[in-house]
Order: sequence, then structure tokens, then C-alpha cells
Amino acid sequence: MKALQRIVFDGQFQMKRGVLATPTFAFETWGNLNDDRSNGVLLFTGLSPSAHAASSSLDPSAGWWEDMIGPNKPLDTNRYFVICINSLGSCFGSTGPASIDPENGSHYRLNFPVLTVEDIADTAVTVLEHFNVPKLHTVVGASMGGMTALAFALNHPDKVRRLVSISSAARSLPYSIALRSLQREMIRKDPLWENGQYALVDHGPVTGMRLARKLGMISYRSAEEWSERFGRERALGFTDEDSPFGIDFEVESYLETHANKFIGSFDANCYLYLSRAMDLFDAADHGGSLANCFTNLGLESALVIGVRTDMLFPMAQQQELADEIAKHIDEVIFTPLDSIQGHDSFLVDMDRFRPAIAAYF
Amino acid sequence: MKALQRIVFDGQFQMKRGVLATPTFAFETWGNLNDDRSNGVLLFTGLSPSAHAASSSLDPSAGWWEDMIGPNKPLDTNRYFVICINSLGSCFGSTGPASIDPENGSHYRLNFPVLTVEDIADTAVTVLEHFNVPKLHTVVGASMGGMTALAFALNHPDKVRRLVSISSAARSLPYSIALRSLQREMIRKDPLWENGQYALVDHGPVTGMRLARKLGMISYRSAEEWSERFGRERALGFTDEDSPFGIDFEVESYLETHANKFIGSFDANCYLYLSRAMDLFDAADHGGSLANCFTNLGLESALVIGVRTDMLFPMAQQQELADEIAKHIDEVIFTPLDSIQGHDSFLVDMDRFRPAIAAYF
Repeated sequence: MKALQRIVFDGQFQMKRGVLATPTFAFETWGNLNDDRSNGVLLFTGLSPSAHAASSSLDPSAGWWEDMIGPNKPLDTNRYFVICINSLGSCFGSTGPASIDPENGSHYRLNFPVLTVEDIADTAVTVLEHFNVPKLHTVVGASMGGMTALAFALNHPDKVRRLVSISSAARSLPYSIALRSLQREMIRKDPLWENGQYALVDHGPVTGMRLARKLGMISYRSAEEWSERFGRERALGFTDEDSPFGIDFEVESYLETHANKFIGSFDANCYLYLSRAMDLFDAADHGGSLANCFTNLGLESALVIGVRTDMLFPMAQQQELADEIAKHIDEVIFTPLDSIQGHDSFLVDMDRFRPAIAAYF
Repeated sequence: MKALQRIVFDGQFQMKRGVLATPTFAFETWGNLNDDRSNGVLLFTGLSPSAHAASSSLDPSAGWWEDMIGPNKPLDTNRYFVICINSLGSCFGSTGPASIDPENGSHYRLNFPVLTVEDIADTAVTVLEHFNVPKLHTVVGASMGGMTALAFALNHPDKVRRLVSISSAARSLPYSIALRSLQREMIRKDPLWENGQYALVDHGPVTGMRLARKLGMISYRSAEEWSERFGRERALGFTDEDSPFGIDFEVESYLETHANKFIGSFDANCYLYLSRAMDLFDAADHGGSLANCFTNLGLESALVIGVRTDMLFPMAQQQELADEIAKHIDEVIFTPLDSIQGHDSFLVDMDRFRPAIAAYF
């Protein structure tokens, strides 16, 4: 048995704007389901992570939220059965644009239907049925995962008791849309994108992906952190011989190193679909306005965590989400954190995030 | 006589990291020099504007600071003789990478010496000598122009009495360096850049320039402004037939429209040189540290204006500049403004900027 498990959906999976024939939903789990199947915690991911949120005996490599999931950790696997789903549209096990369409034997590429956050959320229903979990203890998500968790709670109010939304929002606003739209344009305008028809192995729009990743990193962190961390330090050991405009400052070498790690590991078309899904998300689509859309939420309580230095999902949006939900459910805890690592704080500022999450569980 | 005047420097112009043979410095002027030549106001520009800051009888087209310069305007041309210099390294009259090197008859392109803000500042000495102005009433600059104005005051303390620094800084910090470095990479990675050897007319890295301009616009404005202005409005009349990832939201069509205006009007190599000059600027180079570099400033007073929503030159940097200068000169006025248009506010929020500048003059 491998850590990454897969379920093949039986039949046509209905998406908001299309259908998929017998898609695969991939996930990992930690801990054990209790006798009354009431301790399920579902975790949705941000745009780029896989379902490997934490290590296990089946896969001892560190996961992307290693400090958060495990025995005696905030998502305590002695108490909870934790499931992390690889997002539909991604390229780490679940069906996405890089997968083969069983109806014609070709890769989907741009024939993949328009992806929405709600579609990703809906894949969880099948996974919960697989484990015979009628109602989750909690659904958790950060960044795009927070949108997905919210979409799950909106679409399936009978299937979840509690929500944890981290550095996310009820909708995308024009500033983050502009940033993501520009990232997508960087990829699409790379001649090697070839209108999505690039060879899927060892090729593709690596320059566009590198640029997009760098802009991502700029928007994921904060000016405050980088001033402390890099100042005006010059880069050592980096030279770009072919140009007088190569790497000069330490912050540039940092971006280059991290962008190079990213390219090659993530399919460009998948990135485009997931990025656009975030732009399209608006909880108001579930009721006509933010004031109306949360009326039918079946939650007992919710935790909304935001970070002061997050420019992609600014604190005002977290406050708005908490305030709007609070009009319709009994308990909403809003926890603003003073982390300086911006949007990415939930991945790195464990000293602030661990206690905030642990307190809720 | 044309509005744009030119002086050819006699001999080798010494730059911080190179020399230029007989470069041209272009500028426009408004108003008249008084008898004792004490009413000169020198204006340095941001990265992309020309010397045409305002209309005149010689060029009635509106300038980029039309509301600020003219009779009875804050820079009152009934009282002051205003000079605006096109930055060295730019492509609107002054010598830059798109100019011809008189020593070999070829365009400079990447053979242009590394450009610094101090070099741009030093061109003003020749222009002031041309008008026989021994000492300026005030040197004024916004954005990169503010850095240039500060560099002028540092390099030529005997030539200026007062300084106005708008939405600028004493040095570039890693966040703005990262943004500009990424803009330059977008241009350099466009195959049509051809390592700077693109045909200079009607060609060149237009895709890279479009992407760089869009990122510029994102960093020049603010999330707050765009939420108010665009919300989640969908774009009408825009379709990108070749892709499912084309323009969807109003904010995307806004960026596209404005980026298309920019490309073609600005030379890509000039952009690269000017952009990097901003990264390299650090007032501390004039004294070892920010605490020491302002010791020899000959200013009688200074006005520092910053904007709350400026992410490129954040308020903390404006405060720092004002505080450091205030340790060495008699009068520093720090004017924080509550504009929501971010870094670009000095170009658009005239209701706040006009009175702030007028009060100082």
C-alpha cells in the first residue's frame, strides 16, 4: 500500500461548467477513523501542494504541513482521521489537464473543462463516501484551500460541522486577479507553451513558469520580511555571463534558486487552470451576495485566521469573511496574526500558527 | 525653437562606472529666470516620463504633470523658472542605450555604461551652467526622480537650497528590487530582445515589455483602489480567441489597454538601464551609512511626501528619509498623504498633491 491512494469516480463527474469521464481523485490519510466515524478532518491544499501534507509510515518524507499534522500535533492524528485531497486539475494524482481523457486516449490539455473551486470541493464527497464518513468533524484549508473548504461547506452544509479558513477569502479581488492573470500571461506568452500542446515530459514553457513562480513568491511574502532578511546584500556565487542585467542582489538569487526548484515539478496547463479557478471564486455566487450566501451554512463553528502582512489575501478580506459568516452561525473565532512572512506565513511561521490551530482543535 | 532643448556636453562625460563621449542632455523649461538667477526649480522625472512635464506655447500638448506646473499652479511659472531634464539613459532626447555612440557610429545598446542615479543627477550641472544658474531654488523629484533629486543634493550641496522628495526613498529595498528585477527578466527572456540587438524601430521585445508594464502598473497602484474601481466586474468587448485563459475581468482589460499604450513608445534597453539604476541607488554610498551620508547636505529645508498605499516606496521609507535628513538640516517637513492610488498618486491624486506642493512653494 502506498501513501497516495486513488479512487476512480464511477461515471460522469459533473463539474460547474463541464463533465469528466471517470476522473481519479487522489489523497493521503493519517490517523484512524473512530467507531462512529465522527473524527474526520478534511484538508484542501493551496494551488501547488500535493496531498502529501505530512509524513507517514508509508511515505516518511516530510510533507508540506509536517509540523501541523501527526501525533500530538495541532491536527492530532491520535484523535483525528485526517484526509488531504490533491486538487482536481492538479498534477499529483488527481485528474487534471495533464491526464489522459479516457474517452479519446489523448491528454486533456486545454480540452479540460473550465475548473472552479467548487469542482475541487465536490471531489471530496466521493472520498468521504469511500470511507463512509457522513459528516466531517472539520474542513480545513489555507489560501486556495480555504476557498475550497468554504465552497465545500456551502455546497454540502450537511457534511461538515466546523470550518478552518486560513489566509483565504470569500472571493478574489482585482489586485490578486491581476497578479494571477499576469502569471498566466507569462506562461501563455512563452513560445514553448505552444498553446498548451507542449510535450508533457522535460519540456514546456519553463521560462514562463520561472517568471510566474518568481511573481508568485513576491506576492506570497512581504516587503517587511525581505528587508529584514536580505537588506541590500549582494549575491555571491551568482553570475549571469550572458547579460549585464543578471543577478546582483541576494534577493534575486533567492528568487532564482526557488523558481528553479519549482519548474519541472508542476505542469504548466494545470497551473493555468488552478490559477484561474481562484480568480473565478466568489462565495456570493451561492446566494447572490456575500450577505445572502452564508444563510444555509450548517456549521457549528468556524475559525478564520489572517495575517497582517498578507497582500494576496489581505486582512480586511479575512475580517469580512469572519463577519459575514458570524451573522449566520453560532461561533466564529477570528484570529489575526502578526506574522511578517505574508501569505506564506501558514507554511513557515509555525510558532504563531501551531497554537492558533491547536487551540481550535 | 522647439519646446525640447538640447545641450551637447563638450568632451568626455564622466559617469560613476564609465564615460560617454559628447552626450546630449535634453530638457524643457517654463517661466523665466529672474535677474539674480535665484528662482530656478529643477525637476527630475520618474523612470518613464519625458521632459515634457507641462504644456507651453512651444508644445501645447498636455505634459505628465500638467496640473502642477504653470501660471498660478503649485510650481508657479509666474515666479519660478522650471527646468525638467530627460534622464540620461532614457530615450526622449538625452543620450541613452538607443542613441548612437559617436566614437563608432553604432547604437550603444548594451555597450552603454552601467547607469546610476548619480549620473542622471550630474547631467543637471551642465544644464545649470548653460543658464548660468549658480544655485537652484529647489530640486524636485518623484519616484526615481526623487532619488535623482537627492543624489543631486548629495553630489552638489552648493548648488541647491531646497529639496522636494515625493514617493521616493534613500535606497532601494529588496521587495522593490525583486519587482524590478523580475520586470527586467521578462524583457530579457523575450526571444525578441535578442540580447539587446533587436531592431530599434517597430520591433523588439514587445511581449516582455507588455508583461513588464503590467507588473509595473500592479506595483504602482493599490489593492484598495482597484477593489473600489473594478471590484469583480467582468470585461466587455474583450476576447482572446486563441486561448481559454484570456481576459475575463475588467481589471485585466484595464492592464491590457494601458500596457499596449506603453509598448512601442519606450526602448527596451533604456528601460533595463533605468530600472537597474534605481536598484543600485543607495544614499549610504555617499557616506558609509544612512546616518552619515547626509552630513554635508547644504539644504536650507526639505519636503518629503509619502503615500500610505505606496507598496513600491512604502511610507516607512519616506519617514526614514525625512528623519535622517532632519538630523542634518534646519527644516524638514514630512507630509504623509492618505491617497489610495499607491505609488502613482503623485500623478493622479491632484486634490491631495497640489496643496501639499503649493504650500511648500
